[in-house]
Amino acid sequence: MKSYEQTFERVVGHARETALWVTTESALGWDERTKMPTAAAPYRTEQITFLAGVIHHRRTDAELGRWLAELSESPLAADPTSDSGATIRHLKRDYDKRVKLPQSLVEELARTASVAQHVWQDARARDDFSSFREVLGKMFVLKRAQADALGYTGSPYDALLDDYEPDESTANVARVLAELRDALVPLVAAIADSRRSPDEMILARHFPEAAQQRFGSMVAAKIGFDFGRGRLDVTAHPFCTSLGPHDCRITTRFDEQFFPTALFGILHEAGHGIYDQGLRTEWHGLPPGEAISLGIHESQSRLWENLVARSRPFWQHFFPMAQQAFPALADVELDDFFFAINHVRPSLIRVEADEATYNLHILIRFELEQALLAGDLKVADLPAAWNEKYHEYLGITPPDDADGVLQDIHWAAGLVGYFPTYSLGNLYASQFFAAADAELGGLGKQFAAGQFAELRHWLGEKIHSQGQRFTAAQLIERVSGKPLSHRPLIEHLRGKLAPLYQL
Amino acid sequence: MKSYEQTFERVVGHARETALWVTTESALGWDERTKMPTAAAPYRTEQITFLAGVIHHRRTDAELGRWLAELSESPLAADPTSDSGATIRHLKRDYDKRVKLPQSLVEELARTASVAQHVWQDARARDDFSSFREVLGKMFVLKRAQADALGYTGSPYDALLDDYEPDESTANVARVLAELRDALVPLVAAIADSRRSPDEMILARHFPEAAQQRFGSMVAAKIGFDFGRGRLDVTAHPFCTSLGPHDCRITTRFDEQFFPTALFGILHEAGHGIYDQGLRTEWHGLPPGEAISLGIHESQSRLWENLVARSRPFWQHFFPMAQQAFPALADVELDDFFFAINHVRPSLIRVEADEATYNLHILIRFELEQALLAGDLKVADLPAAWNEKYHEYLGITPPDDADGVLQDIHWAAGLVGYFPTYSLGNLYASQFFAAADAELGGLGKQFAAGQFAELRHWLGEKIHSQGQRFTAAQLIERVSGKPLSHRPLIEHLRGKLAPLYQL
Repeated sequence: MKSYEQTFERVVGHARETALWVTTESALGWDERTKMPTAAAPYRTEQITFLAGVIHHRRTDAELGRWLAELSESPLAADPTSDSGATIRHLKRDYDKRVKLPQSLVEELARTASVAQHVWQDARARDDFSSFREVLGKMFVLKRAQADALGYTGSPYDALLDDYEPDESTANVARVLAELRDALVPLVAAIADSRRSPDEMILARHFPEAAQQRFGSMVAAKIGFDFGRGRLDVTAHPFCTSLGPHDCRITTRFDEQFFPTALFGILHEAGHGIYDQGLRTEWHGLPPGEAISLGIHESQSRLWENLVARSRPFWQHFFPMAQQAFPALADVELDDFFFAINHVRPSLIRVEADEATYNLHILIRFELEQALLAGDLKVADLPAAWNEKYHEYLGITPPDDADGVLQDIHWAAGLVGYFPTYSLGNLYASQFFAAADAELGGLGKQFAAGQFAELRHWLGEKIHSQGQRFTAAQLIERVSGKPLSHRPLIEHLRGKLAPLYQL
Repeated sequence: MKSYEQTFERVVGHARETALWVTTESALGWDERTKMPTAAAPYRTEQITFLAGVIHHRRTDAELGRWLAELSESPLAADPTSDSGATIRHLKRDYDKRVKLPQSLVEELARTASVAQHVWQDARARDDFSSFREVLGKMFVLKRAQADALGYTGSPYDALLDDYEPDESTANVARVLAELRDALVPLVAAIADSRRSPDEMILARHFPEAAQQRFGSMVAAKIGFDFGRGRLDVTAHPFCTSLGPHDCRITTRFDEQFFPTALFGILHEAGHGIYDQGLRTEWHGLPPGEAISLGIHESQSRLWENLVARSRPFWQHFFPMAQQAFPALADVELDDFFFAINHVRPSLIRVEADEATYNLHILIRFELEQALLAGDLKVADLPAAWNEKYHEYLGITPPDDADGVLQDIHWAAGLVGYFPTYSLGNLYASQFFAAADAELGGLGKQFAAGQFAELRHWLGEKIHSQGQRFTAAQLIERVSGKPLSHRPLIEHLRGKLAPLYQL
């Protein structure tokens, strides 16, 4: 065996061992959020902090750095889209980034994030932005220091965005989101001006939790979430996590007085889960067996949640079953149900927003966090800037900061550069779906017949099984033949909403 | 600070870090047995094997060995019942034992146990002892090699017993169990000869799982299992495990057609849990904050399950609630219920045996495994020897090996020396309980009033909070004023059973 092949085996072994730690950390995290008794929290924090330290130590192991430096010059790295090439490229990039960050900065960020989240929680509860101002200012100073340590060519935001959407640039995201905004604001305004609106109360009848659990699990299994390799639990804040190559856990929350919460939540997380379950298990814990980016991951959840499960054909199949499962729907017409689950209305809270306005919530955060990081906006002026943008894009003004600038935990947690991945997910989802529909021909007919396997296999082949071989930008071009654009999402929204609102 | 005090701090830090790994392993193990999707099993084995390796490596760390050697000569070790003395004594003993075992033997034992459990499962399913003979023979050869490597003064069995019941001797266990046998065999025979027997069918009516879950949790909380620091889940084979100082998890199984299974199972595990929850949390992961032995642990589960929860006063309090919770008990008299849950009858299967005959099942295994280890009994002759002893002690003969010598997994798993701790648990439990009853005066009256706190605090003070400061033998003398004896158990059984069976 050539020496670089031996080195590659060493790197693979190293990464697989790291993955054992990472998945163990995921197991502790899943348990913490779903099952753990409350009094156990401080010790669990100790366990996870300790494990995180071990993982960080492994990932910045100087020997790993030498192996990767050697390999990046070898023939194994020549094709960055080969399994070995992708492995070397991504691990080296991860290593190089991690060693650039001074230990003191990493610790200060962790400490500040911990403090800031407590302060934020309290500030939100008391609707008092001023008490959050100082620690938020400190967080942005630290994030800027992080960006400076990592380095960037365009804006400092590039360095942070890279953690969540690798290889993507702020300028490109800004371009496509601005185009989306320019098309979306008038669409949302036209809907608001229309005289049509669904009877949302049909979704606010009584839907017993046990029946929701059975129905949601049945639908998730039907679209392809494999319960032999996963499970569903209950949490306040739904999520999806993988504890191993055959162990994907999704969670939801149930609201007996509002049907969409659990079901679309389950299908959203099941979409994430189907991606994880479609990764190549033989490359588990290595770049060819890992998800590309948060945006691509979100595209899979949004595709199933919105493009599939909020479509009319989907409910042609499932609505009769829903009527069987829920007496509250017995006298409801499919058309009324379909309109109700697709109601578009400007609202204050991002996580409760509909498919269309959701992206305007993201745009606001994306624009504001760039300005904060660049120093163009002072933290003290943030609430006013927030309210102004809500008025401009959504035509509403938050009555207070609790339901305004204080609604999200992200900035307190140090997640700057994260928000745009939600909208990127929506954009990717529409562009992927349009390509699948064109290629497979008439997905609607399949959905109406309860058939989802063809779409799932197509996604598996084109996206899930590709792991990190391609960048998100490369993947979207390979799959759809075109670079990322706002058009498929706008076309999808117009196509569905124009008839409903008679635009 | 004196140098040995610094060394002690190092040892404590080392052990606390090891405990982070051990509790993480416990978390993975709990999840594996309660929640994990089936397909995830192979990767979970990888995770746990890897962690076990890390833990073994830490526990045989030569630096730890040097620290402990230094400390064992220091003033901190002078009083072996002080916190520091107990810490040094137990950690040194653990270290010295571990480094005596050649790595090759450890691996061979692990491999053989893995193979043997599969072979055993298959042999039991096919009722074919002969297919299990070879690997069982190999296991006993390896266990003998383990005993020889560890060293012993009395019999090789001493070296193995020490893993489960530290500081105890085979001779002493044999003495007390023989005395127990001599008193128990005639008692069980007299019961079998009596004309009395309860109507067991009242326990085999319909008991809905949800109601059992609620009732069992209520009773467990009432006797003192703290659900704020623990939880209850469902498994095929019930157990109790702690994932941290405030995170004790118990499990049970529900049988809707047999009331005692879940309830007494829950109270048994809750008894284990109350011990764990009563350990000193500031010494978590260190000998002063750990349980003494399997026998003492079992004494706490048996005490609550049998001495408390199979007593008449206990049901004076809870039976009206049970009748509320289960319509199936509405027409049942307390006396009939009490007799039914205390029915004694020789039976084939250890895990289904009653409070009295259970110990004869243990005696048989204890005597046979000693003979196998000493070479006095050949594996080929084991089934005949087994059946002979069942006839002699219990008056019954197994119809086949599946329900005879093949019923337990222990020997296949390499757990030789483990069985007697079950009976030691019963013996300790009775001796502790008699002491508590004498000291606190009239526990029955308290139980009848639904009061369990005084007993629990007494156990907490006398036993739980002592950790490993005393050996089991020292503890039993300190608590009861007498060395371990078969008498309290026999007196307890006679006291309850003689009136029921009119002996």
